Amino acid sequence: MPELLPRAQSSSESVFAHMSRLALRHGAVNLGQGFPSDPPPAFLLDAARRAVGTADQYAPPIGLPLLRDAVGADLGVDGADVVVTSGATEALNVLALALYGPGDEVLMCEPVFDVYVPQARLAGAMPVTVPMRLTDEEGWALDLDAVRAAVTPRTRALLLNSPYNPTGTVFSRAELDALVALARAHDLWIISDEVYDELYFGEQPVALRDLAPERTFTVGSAGKRLEATGWRVGWIACPPGLAGNVAAIRQVGSFCAPTPFQAAVASALPVARREGFYEGLRAEYGERMRLLAGGLRRLGATVFEPRGTYFLTLRRPGWTAETLVEEGVAVIPGTAFYVSHPAPEGMFRLAFCKSRGELGRALERLERGTHVGA
Amino acid sequence: MPELLPRAQSSSESVFAHMSRLALRHGAVNLGQGFPSDPPPAFLLDAARRAVGTADQYAPPIGLPLLRDAVGADLGVDGADVVVTSGATEALNVLALALYGPGDEVLMCEPVFDVYVPQARLAGAMPVTVPMRLTDEEGWALDLDAVRAAVTPRTRALLLNSPYNPTGTVFSRAELDALVALARAHDLWIISDEVYDELYFGEQPVALRDLAPERTFTVGSAGKRLEATGWRVGWIACPPGLAGNVAAIRQVGSFCAPTPFQAAVASALPVARREGFYEGLRAEYGERMRLLAGGLRRLGATVFEPRGTYFLTLRRPGWTAETLVEEGVAVIPGTAFYVSHPAPEGMFRLAFCKSRGELGRALERLERGTHVGA
Repeated sequence: MPELLPRAQSSSESVFAHMSRLALRHGAVNLGQGFPSDPPPAFLLDAARRAVGTADQYAPPIGLPLLRDAVGADLGVDGADVVVTSGATEALNVLALALYGPGDEVLMCEPVFDVYVPQARLAGAMPVTVPMRLTDEEGWALDLDAVRAAVTPRTRALLLNSPYNPTGTVFSRAELDALVALARAHDLWIISDEVYDELYFGEQPVALRDLAPERTFTVGSAGKRLEATGWRVGWIACPPGLAGNVAAIRQVGSFCAPTPFQAAVASALPVARREGFYEGLRAEYGERMRLLAGGLRRLGATVFEPRGTYFLTLRRPGWTAETLVEEGVAVIPGTAFYVSHPAPEGMFRLAFCKSRGELGRALERLERGTHVGA
Repeated sequence: MPELLPRAQSSSESVFAHMSRLALRHGAVNLGQGFPSDPPPAFLLDAARRAVGTADQYAPPIGLPLLRDAVGADLGVDGADVVVTSGATEALNVLALALYGPGDEVLMCEPVFDVYVPQARLAGAMPVTVPMRLTDEEGWALDLDAVRAAVTPRTRALLLNSPYNPTGTVFSRAELDALVALARAHDLWIISDEVYDELYFGEQPVALRDLAPERTFTVGSAGKRLEATGWRVGWIACPPGLAGNVAAIRQVGSFCAPTPFQAAVASALPVARREGFYEGLRAEYGERMRLLAGGLRRLGATVFEPRGTYFLTLRRPGWTAETLVEEGVAVIPGTAFYVSHPAPEGMFRLAFCKSRGELGRALERLERGTHVGA
């Protein structure tokens, strides 16, 4: 047989898929992978059931016109600048292919959402990670000086994530202003992964496209917004005039996103906004977050409460993800988010987009677990 | 602003999306893009409506176990060797990334299905096309000597399509044996695009994986099989042991295929087989093909009747796709399928997966069209 290319030598599945599989095997409560236990809202399900049987054939690769307009209206951009993708993962991959290649570097913070690094490599570019600071007292903090110091003549783009998976950080207006100034000084693209734009627990996150519309690509996700992570509808809001170029790459990757779900999301986005769906989600997830955080603190963990996303991080040296899943709770080890620097000792990411029952069971199991006292 | 990469400089949409847009604008009968006018079968729609609301979150990137097993059972391979993708376009893109890169060549026949060439280039490899022979008397024929002559030390893969879009060719057992011998002699991978495996009008096509299981990746499509091209569920049947490697690249591209439609297709595949759905489709499409071919011949076209796919090709020097769409019939010009060689003069591809009413209207409009007598 011929050999596989170096980029195809690995056969490891994503840590999220891996932990979900282990969770199933051990009957564990799955606080690992970031998908909700609750079903999507009825207004979305009804729209999808109507679309199935009426919108079943190819959509334009750039997206259904109705959905592009609905995303545009929701974000306050022109629908003509929106490209629909098969989930935010594809959005990020398409942007990697469009914006950086061999000889280029792309700057991102570490801990890093797992696909950023292999996507940059698949595009032929070099991912450069800048570690976030973490102290037990102050939690996670952006190290702006380190970001500035990491820029080289080969840097082509900043890949930012706010609200930030896994840290839960929401970058402040002052931090974003500084990052935009840096991007302008060095003529960098900005890829702003804002899939948790409606999941925040304090002030509303600032959208980077509002600060630097000429160079910012905003990545969004109907799956995260509307609790349907398996439906594979994401989007990119592009700087004016670039949607056609992005769509031309996107059509080679998977041609188009699922048409019935595009139609359903198009009709659901204005309903979600009008009916206060996101406010309800924030209120509910805020309570679940505090429930989980309180329980974990009683078990001796140092918990870093998030300002956004549906994840919290903690430090509890001595725990391991392998032992916790055997004891009935699946979590993601911090090491999964570190590629160039050592992970903080005993760091884990836990998802709280799960039912209160599951969160309670997870805490009970952790309390009973032989490993917890270790 | 920074410049876009050379690979992102083009903003042209696929010819299929382009002609569908023109068809809408001119109120034309759309015989261009290959999607059916009929809705998907009720057993598939019912399964999808059941899955929506119960299987809405991430699937494993490699695919839902039930679907991998259903595809395996349908194709006669082990479900463990199956990777589920967001449609066959993504399957082909993932294989391009896995199997060839910079310095490699991939051999394909011309006319070439449009995504093969940009996918090879995006993977960093060089597409090398070998023209099919076409004569008015004998129709399309594979030029085996030309294929053999095109192999170089840099050739890594043969990318084959049978039933063949756009020519409608079904390669014979003898032709496939010769291609397999060539692949074995030069240690080449075989990518066999068999999305029309159930759409044939004579003998059943031979599956390349049965002749060369050790090196053949079979690409399939639920959208083509079950008349739901917008649902984005495709698959790759890999040589034993390689599914994990392929899935590792696939998960970086769009993470997973839409979960509800994976569940629906898993339950529909055995029903389609058991209830003779494909036989019904072949009988119906065979009649529509003959209806369209007969009408076109009466208009002076030389029609090459397909042995498979839901496309026919014809030659009618003097027609142009631009004029035909203005006169009310969208078709795909032959030039869309040629990148290295000149297209046969006056060649067009027409889809007959449309209703009898549409086919009849298309023929009427062509007959009335001022352009037809030109």
